[in-house]
Amino acid sequence: MTQSRISGTVRIVGAGLLGTSIGLALSKHGVDVVVDDNSPANQRLAIEYGAGRKPAVSDSPALVVVCVPPDVTARAVAAELGAHPQAVVTDVASVKLEIARELSESGADLSRYVGSHPMAGRERGGALAGRADLFFTRPWVIAPNATSSSDAVRLVESLALELGAAPIRMDAATHDRAVAVVSHVPQVVSSLLAARLNDVAADDVALAGQGLRDTTRIAASDPNLWIQILSANADQVRPILEALNQDLAKVVAALDDVEANGSLTVLGDALKRGNSGVSLIPGKHGAQAQNYARVVVMIDDKPGQMARLLTEIGEIGVNLEDLKLEHSPGAQIGLTELFVLPEVEGKLIESLSARGWRIAG
Amino acid sequence: MTQSRISGTVRIVGAGLLGTSIGLALSKHGVDVVVDDNSPANQRLAIEYGAGRKPAVSDSPALVVVCVPPDVTARAVAAELGAHPQAVVTDVASVKLEIARELSESGADLSRYVGSHPMAGRERGGALAGRADLFFTRPWVIAPNATSSSDAVRLVESLALELGAAPIRMDAATHDRAVAVVSHVPQVVSSLLAARLNDVAADDVALAGQGLRDTTRIAASDPNLWIQILSANADQVRPILEALNQDLAKVVAALDDVEANGSLTVLGDALKRGNSGVSLIPGKHGAQAQNYARVVVMIDDKPGQMARLLTEIGEIGVNLEDLKLEHSPGAQIGLTELFVLPEVEGKLIESLSARGWRIAG
Repeated sequence: MTQSRISGTVRIVGAGLLGTSIGLALSKHGVDVVVDDNSPANQRLAIEYGAGRKPAVSDSPALVVVCVPPDVTARAVAAELGAHPQAVVTDVASVKLEIARELSESGADLSRYVGSHPMAGRERGGALAGRADLFFTRPWVIAPNATSSSDAVRLVESLALELGAAPIRMDAATHDRAVAVVSHVPQVVSSLLAARLNDVAADDVALAGQGLRDTTRIAASDPNLWIQILSANADQVRPILEALNQDLAKVVAALDDVEANGSLTVLGDALKRGNSGVSLIPGKHGAQAQNYARVVVMIDDKPGQMARLLTEIGEIGVNLEDLKLEHSPGAQIGLTELFVLPEVEGKLIESLSARGWRIAG
Repeated sequence: MTQSRISGTVRIVGAGLLGTSIGLALSKHGVDVVVDDNSPANQRLAIEYGAGRKPAVSDSPALVVVCVPPDVTARAVAAELGAHPQAVVTDVASVKLEIARELSESGADLSRYVGSHPMAGRERGGALAGRADLFFTRPWVIAPNATSSSDAVRLVESLALELGAAPIRMDAATHDRAVAVVSHVPQVVSSLLAARLNDVAADDVALAGQGLRDTTRIAASDPNLWIQILSANADQVRPILEALNQDLAKVVAALDDVEANGSLTVLGDALKRGNSGVSLIPGKHGAQAQNYARVVVMIDDKPGQMARLLTEIGEIGVNLEDLKLEHSPGAQIGLTELFVLPEVEGKLIESLSARGWRIAG
């Protein structure tokens, strides 16, 4: 085991998805983790799950991570700052400005407080959804206040690094503006889109393809959490939704009379602006993904086939950038999508074909 | 090679994504495929790609598949019915009622015409995006008109089956109503959502997570094609978008004064109706996916590791239902998500751990 970046005890307040995930990861790295929760049942569950140990009177944590719902985060942070006068305190709430405002009115010692927000989550919540790998390669916003000490900032950054995340320093207002557009607005839009399915015949929904599945996946998120996030960041979310509402009204008007002069232009502009918007998203599923070549191999649906395929890809000497398995229940054949650098695509197809693999497309 | 369900020559009109994909699949099955396109360059590209051969004067196709843009589909179908008096003719356009209406006014022999629509596509178009596996396990709507002969319907269903798709019989009006909600409305919403990113600072978009990527993926679709689809199905799409816009206006109003009585209820209702809507979507990424257990294995990012993992899973005797590889550029460790039936999850984790694999979470 390599030395952890974190020395001393870490106290986690709130044993939900994020608190449990942080506890699991730190415990694996040998850090002394204490898990507290208002609910004894939640606390016990997270501890049994491996997130840490029960608090003791003698605990003197170096770092407290507050992982409670946004509406009670400021109160919990202030309480922890008071209870542990040596500790640095951070929180992981999805909104930062409202919490900073509440804290500045609390009279707490904010030199030891640094707000933060790991850009990681799941549609499911609770301790049992916790994963030590939840933060791996994800951005983790570090939002110091005007009085945060540099030691406190470094410690919270160390926490992010220890969990495999990429710390990004940002003030609270910038954070809230950014997450409004990349997270909060997509949540509302996905929920409203999925809500339309409630009025639809089951036979119609049976035609659902990947487009509908992707656009509505996050509509499965926890309403109680999102009510808090949306209301705490209402000032940033509202104008974007308002602009979207106006864009949508224009599309509705164009569809109301598609023969009218300019209607097709309205539709085309909306679609083209969508093209340019999505091209701005960085990362492997955005612009970069298009730089990989895709090779689809059909394999028999029985154990060992995938392994044989990957063994042979190893023998051929090609490194996979990404891999997806399309397995339809009942089908005798699976489709394996291999993503590789374009310069090795030809070699891969040729070599696999020569070895008798069926390449689709 | 097994006997194809299709005997005789199949003539494909239009060498785009769908025409090329159909040609590739049928050619692989030994069917005599003829590829025609108004553009000699497109036609040559699809033929070189393996979709079929050039038309000859002596051709007497048993089946003609019209794969041209929606706005010229009716005209092309009528022309093919006239030019090939023995042939059954189908099309693959995403809208069916408008085309049926235009054809009923054309005076063509509609007993030999059966409209159809494979629920398959990609964000990219053109012959080079063509894939023989494009239709594999996808629904393929078969929409006969009142005069379609039963032989014609059977032949078009055979085409769907031959390409690995699941034929679903539906009249044109029902089809158009269904695709409005499962395909056309999600396209508009995704485009408008992605369009909001045009006004955003690059640093803000850098916080994008999987939620934004999923909700905006189809915003990369071809505007020219979608202008036609949306305007041809405007009567079905408009009321759904209108209802969505009213829902959105309510959310905006609630965010405008979150302290007002009832505001949080509006937000909560929108989110909860999203929960129930998304739960109605069938298929492996919907309700069914939640029935698989997920095991995450951390592997070193070097060739052969995945193969070794899968070989050992084969030795353990567990069948994978699905598999995802999370590979971040530059990272030394990859995360492999294995999806298995819940009853074998424990055995898999235990056996892999015993063999020294690192299980995350």
